[in-house]
Amino acid sequence: MKLASLANGRPDGELIVVNRELTCAVSAHAIAPTLQSALDGWRVAEPQLRELAAQLEAGTTEDEVFEFDPTTVLSPLPRAYQWVDGSAYVNHVELVRKARGAEMPEQFWHDPLVYQGGSDDFLPPLADAAFPSAEFGIDVEAETAVVTCRVPMGTKAANAGKHIRLLMLVNDWSLRNLIPGELAKGFGFYQSKPATAFSPVAVTPDELGDDWRDGTFHLPLRTHLNGELFGEPESGVDMTFSFEQLIEHVAKTRNLGAGTIIGSGTVSNYDRSRGSSCLAEKRMLETIEHGKPVTPFMSYGDTVRIEMLDRSGHSIFGAIEQTVVEAS
Amino acid sequence: MKLASLANGRPDGELIVVNRELTCAVSAHAIAPTLQSALDGWRVAEPQLRELAAQLEAGTTEDEVFEFDPTTVLSPLPRAYQWVDGSAYVNHVELVRKARGAEMPEQFWHDPLVYQGGSDDFLPPLADAAFPSAEFGIDVEAETAVVTCRVPMGTKAANAGKHIRLLMLVNDWSLRNLIPGELAKGFGFYQSKPATAFSPVAVTPDELGDDWRDGTFHLPLRTHLNGELFGEPESGVDMTFSFEQLIEHVAKTRNLGAGTIIGSGTVSNYDRSRGSSCLAEKRMLETIEHGKPVTPFMSYGDTVRIEMLDRSGHSIFGAIEQTVVEAS
Repeated sequence: MKLASLANGRPDGELIVVNRELTCAVSAHAIAPTLQSALDGWRVAEPQLRELAAQLEAGTTEDEVFEFDPTTVLSPLPRAYQWVDGSAYVNHVELVRKARGAEMPEQFWHDPLVYQGGSDDFLPPLADAAFPSAEFGIDVEAETAVVTCRVPMGTKAANAGKHIRLLMLVNDWSLRNLIPGELAKGFGFYQSKPATAFSPVAVTPDELGDDWRDGTFHLPLRTHLNGELFGEPESGVDMTFSFEQLIEHVAKTRNLGAGTIIGSGTVSNYDRSRGSSCLAEKRMLETIEHGKPVTPFMSYGDTVRIEMLDRSGHSIFGAIEQTVVEAS
Repeated sequence: MKLASLANGRPDGELIVVNRELTCAVSAHAIAPTLQSALDGWRVAEPQLRELAAQLEAGTTEDEVFEFDPTTVLSPLPRAYQWVDGSAYVNHVELVRKARGAEMPEQFWHDPLVYQGGSDDFLPPLADAAFPSAEFGIDVEAETAVVTCRVPMGTKAANAGKHIRLLMLVNDWSLRNLIPGELAKGFGFYQSKPATAFSPVAVTPDELGDDWRDGTFHLPLRTHLNGELFGEPESGVDMTFSFEQLIEHVAKTRNLGAGTIIGSGTVSNYDRSRGSSCLAEKRMLETIEHGKPVTPFMSYGDTVRIEMLDRSGHSIFGAIEQTVVEAS
């Protein structure tokens, strides 16, 4: 089942069910007005939404079917009560350290890094991304993410999988030149992590078939910059912590509310021929090889496209497609 | 005007208007079902809510008036799209550094420290606070907070005041023994900041009269631990950054969504005779004086009460009253 939120002038949009081919959709308003409300009452909403999705596939729905246009949707959750992003591809973290000549603590291989992100104002998947300065080191971070139902404090990884409701892709925009100063202050990211973007649709895990297993996506995540392929690392390779392990980590001292979004962090493979999911990684590889970075961060007018194809070459989530612009 | 969210079995509760004396209330459901929905449409909702509040004070409302019982309410926003906490009493930060023999960077006097908090699962103001271990260094942090409407990216302090809709008190529970390890990892707080609690009611700034000015509260914030007065520092003294300055800081690279909660950080005065707003500060003062802390962190069964009285001795926000318990 694929779900999206149609822009309707309200902060949370209108919940729609989208067909598998991403060509048409139907309003789910009669079942749940918004995706958050569906997640709040998932036990009741899910079977009804699945029935509507089956009717949409079969062409038997009595409701109005309309063309699915990804430019008309907001983020699946246009705003959320929690967005927490991991850094589960530890080889990427190791590389960051190596580029600045520092050892990575051994602890990082068994104790996940996560940061609490801002979740009040997500960008629509095909909206321009506006920044106040091109000097801030504008960078993309292509990631995968899960959306959970309510998770009780103390949930262990072995029991975490059943709390995962939906899967999405992420572009975790980062302002690299603001990060060192902000992290040096000790309280983590804030200004260096502007509004995040998610894929046009969120899908239930069964949409990935065997390519969702062990709490991990198992397909390449493709990033294009300015129309050229930049990276297609395998999301199932070198992911040190599964989403189930990330859930155990973030539920250690708190309950997680329904609609919590958990990100994987930048997808990255040891096999560097797969390319990268952020400019910072490419610049670190250049620094290690040549002593300094060559590839610049993004400028106004630059574009990014992030997508995941199934094994038949069909887009699963639709593409995040954004252009960097100057904030007005 | 004073607003609260009555527990009704739903995640966001039911919006109610409470009288100035905190003795009776009336449902605002016909105007806006929840506080978040009121904030989303404040221009329309505010005059209607103020009219209902005036009727409640005058005893002329035709709706059912019921006794206000703070044990029946959730946090004013039971969950929110953003909770960002400052550390605006820089003398407190300076003290933290002094206790461990470190200099505080001069930058901290003009560049605010903030962290992104979890906002998906706030504790009701009179609910028990459950933690998985008493060895985590359980501590309170008594603070003030504001709730904003939508704030555009790039808003300056001079224009920030008009975006402040409501004022509240906060208990920013902290797990002190988890902080050093977590901050050493570099990505900020996560497990060390469990669910936060807010005062029973949120009030419009006019409820404080002249004691809300220049984007700052100007009344003592009283904290009792196990029934004994622990601190009553003046919230208007030694606050290095006003809420208007904090808004400028947090809106530098993002819009803020309606219902964003911004906290002051632990209220703290140079005048140590005013006491403290967290155990960590008292322990640091003991460390500086005696070489080691004497006062322990909280244990199961310990209680905290956080309140702010007006100049006539009446509680403005109702009291946060919590007991530390073991998570089941």
